[in-house]
Amino acid sequence: MYGLIGKIQVVPGQRDALIAILLDGAREMPGCLSYVVAQDSTDPDAIWVTEVWDRQESHAASLTLPSVQQAMARGKPLIAGFSERCETVPVGGHGLATVP
Amino acid sequence: MYGLIGKIQVVPGQRDALIAILLDGAREMPGCLSYVVAQDSTDPDAIWVTEVWDRQESHAASLTLPSVQQAMARGKPLIAGFSERCETVPVGGHGLATVP
Repeated sequence: MYGLIGKIQVVPGQRDALIAILLDGAREMPGCLSYVVAQDSTDPDAIWVTEVWDRQESHAASLTLPSVQQAMARGKPLIAGFSERCETVPVGGHGLATVP
Repeated sequence: MYGLIGKIQVVPGQRDALIAILLDGAREMPGCLSYVVAQDSTDPDAIWVTEVWDRQESHAASLTLPSVQQAMARGKPLIAGFSERCETVPVGGHGLATVP
């Protein structure tokens, strides 16, 4: 499996707008086993996105999907930066979807 | 929902042993919607645990489960420290289990 953990700093006041765009863009991504968007509990201008994919190639392919490209175009102006971005190798757990 | 994102620094050489303990202890936790254990891609002595719960009280209650307490007792000597620990408010996504 292939994982990404990212903390996004959002343009102030745009957190909920960015979250809506991310969730809208993340529907029906082949090979995506988990994609969770979360508010940071202490920083009102930060969100976390945690992703699990069956393999890295599925994540790379998702970036070419029209729905994802549209979300990236809409979301980019709302992103101030990335304060954390880490690649992982998920090894197991609970709540991983079956491959669509 | 209630979320936790943690990066654990492991005693060198004990990463896979700690992962096995964590996965074993994380079975059948009421209210747990997602629990993923991942190796860090660059640090061989670091793992990430990302959790999503229906509410914070379910996470607190899980810490009293015998299976979780046993896992904590077994895992503690293998943990060198926590380099990241963040509470989140997950708002949606894909791959969240239904409440058991």
